[in-house]
Amino acid sequence: MESRVEQFSAETLRQVGLVLFRALGASREEAAIVVNELIEASLMGVDSHGVMRYVQYAEEIWSGQIKPGAVVEIVRQTPSTAVVDCGFNFGAVGAHRMIPVVCGKAARTGVACVVSRNSNHVGRLGSWVERIASHNMLGLATVNVSKSKHAVAPFGGREARLGTNAIAWAAPSSGRPIVFDASTAMISEGQLRLCAHTGQPVPEGRILDAAGHPTTDPRAFYGPPPGAILPFGMPLGHKGYGLGLLVEVLGACLAGVAVGEETAQRNGLCLIAISPDAFISADQFRRLIEDLRAYVTSSAPAPGYEEVLMPGDLEQRTRARRLVEGIPVPIEIWDRILAVARQAGAKLPLTS
Amino acid sequence: MESRVEQFSAETLRQVGLVLFRALGASREEAAIVVNELIEASLMGVDSHGVMRYVQYAEEIWSGQIKPGAVVEIVRQTPSTAVVDCGFNFGAVGAHRMIPVVCGKAARTGVACVVSRNSNHVGRLGSWVERIASHNMLGLATVNVSKSKHAVAPFGGREARLGTNAIAWAAPSSGRPIVFDASTAMISEGQLRLCAHTGQPVPEGRILDAAGHPTTDPRAFYGPPPGAILPFGMPLGHKGYGLGLLVEVLGACLAGVAVGEETAQRNGLCLIAISPDAFISADQFRRLIEDLRAYVTSSAPAPGYEEVLMPGDLEQRTRARRLVEGIPVPIEIWDRILAVARQAGAKLPLTS
Repeated sequence: MESRVEQFSAETLRQVGLVLFRALGASREEAAIVVNELIEASLMGVDSHGVMRYVQYAEEIWSGQIKPGAVVEIVRQTPSTAVVDCGFNFGAVGAHRMIPVVCGKAARTGVACVVSRNSNHVGRLGSWVERIASHNMLGLATVNVSKSKHAVAPFGGREARLGTNAIAWAAPSSGRPIVFDASTAMISEGQLRLCAHTGQPVPEGRILDAAGHPTTDPRAFYGPPPGAILPFGMPLGHKGYGLGLLVEVLGACLAGVAVGEETAQRNGLCLIAISPDAFISADQFRRLIEDLRAYVTSSAPAPGYEEVLMPGDLEQRTRARRLVEGIPVPIEIWDRILAVARQAGAKLPLTS
Repeated sequence: MESRVEQFSAETLRQVGLVLFRALGASREEAAIVVNELIEASLMGVDSHGVMRYVQYAEEIWSGQIKPGAVVEIVRQTPSTAVVDCGFNFGAVGAHRMIPVVCGKAARTGVACVVSRNSNHVGRLGSWVERIASHNMLGLATVNVSKSKHAVAPFGGREARLGTNAIAWAAPSSGRPIVFDASTAMISEGQLRLCAHTGQPVPEGRILDAAGHPTTDPRAFYGPPPGAILPFGMPLGHKGYGLGLLVEVLGACLAGVAVGEETAQRNGLCLIAISPDAFISADQFRRLIEDLRAYVTSSAPAPGYEEVLMPGDLEQRTRARRLVEGIPVPIEIWDRILAVARQAGAKLPLTS
């Protein structure tokens, strides 16, 4: 059941995305923001947050979940905080507009924290902390998902009560920022879907069946009745669980959203920016980050590894390679992209 | 080699600590702060950060590492940030004085971030976020250790380049705050020492020998040549590694400290306080945290578990039990406490 994969240039996929979302009512600016995020994720190898989302976003526009052109506005603020109502515009558009808010406040007071309301899927979390780092600040971010997407069991439990909640941070360095981005679950739902498609077993220690027993059968996760993904860090899963809860506290509770109730919101995004100028200086901070990189990566590799990397290094290598070789897209996804583009009445550059 | 353990009441241990640190030159207030932290950690079952530290702190006062009475002062600040020079007073005294700074700033601007310089061992990290939560705020904290205590390998490496760096958060709820506190390593150095003492093997997947091979022999960690502790989350250790790095970025880089250089500082503490009043209201936030607790703990337990708990629940149960039954202290540690007390010329309440 392995699906055929073809390579597409980032530029081709970008043009397809732009005409698709323009045809679906997005402004030139909004379409560019959304497409850029998805292309960057695909370039970095984060395919689950890449161009395969073209189809989902198109469907969500048709269903009314995504409202292109919706106003994104600050509904409450203090000198160092803001609640931003993203109005169900594209999640990336909301997040994009939150960046100058959080960085501007951090520039003035030293640190800022901004949360979203009524946000759609914001895409790769690392992208948003990388933006903060490109403002010469330290960026922290978390993103949760609404109840219908809960797939992760609490530690000691067998029923899904959390999303695969992600935590990210980024720090400026001499080259591209150092970017860490990880979920608080043992496996992503996208990887489980892939296992279910291909008939491959799930690695051990990742999921439970509905009775709470460990399993490697992806169908036992989907049910019915459904199983659950284990929290990150098993057998020390209480740690991943506690971090997953933090993501709910920051993304939901702080924004006034009840975690256990179904909401129209898809993602609850929390962004924190810290200005090194408030503590030392941005230059000194960047040097200390470089020293940290040099010191940590100077460790001899363990058997089976060639080198010690910093977070985000692998993604940057994949990006450099895919810029040359192209982005692999399963033909079945490409066909679905073409289908939604046709349905949207988009004039595709390839087919025109 | 199992050492005999005796139960002591918290009150007895408190009195011993107070006269010890008073005899060593601490003011009544400083001694009370330090002793209270260690007693609370012991009550909660976090024995590695409990009364066994009496001996270490006494020795550090004699060596000049801890300077009782040293001035703790803000050396740089903005409306939402501060760098606090702890002057090598007790770490707990420095941290204790950072709390009103971070909470006061967060009350005014919505969020605040405060880092330490010249700090000694701050003890149980969870204690400091719990203080922030008791101000009706969300508390986040990280703590790193200086180079000589590096024991954790970076992901893919075999040489220690990080401490067992901890991350903590706490949120106010209807009862005591919810408190999460975890290291970013697969095992604590204290647990390894215990294994080495008792001759028990280390659980699998926790440590590497000097050649970078997995081992369960605690002596292979101590060397020479030394091995290393694996980052939290193995086989997904890149996540624990990235979180451990964040702790260095917040605790060292932001405070102007080079991670790869030996410093007199023991702990680099970063405290972040977020005021829910800036986003919703403290009351609504507390209700949403209670809802989160109810929703998450409503999951049926997995086989082998009796219930789903929130972070910190176990520590509170241990505390309730030890308040009644007493705190177990290995006789060998008790003897060492008595020895330093004698050396300090302290008039012990038990022996007077």
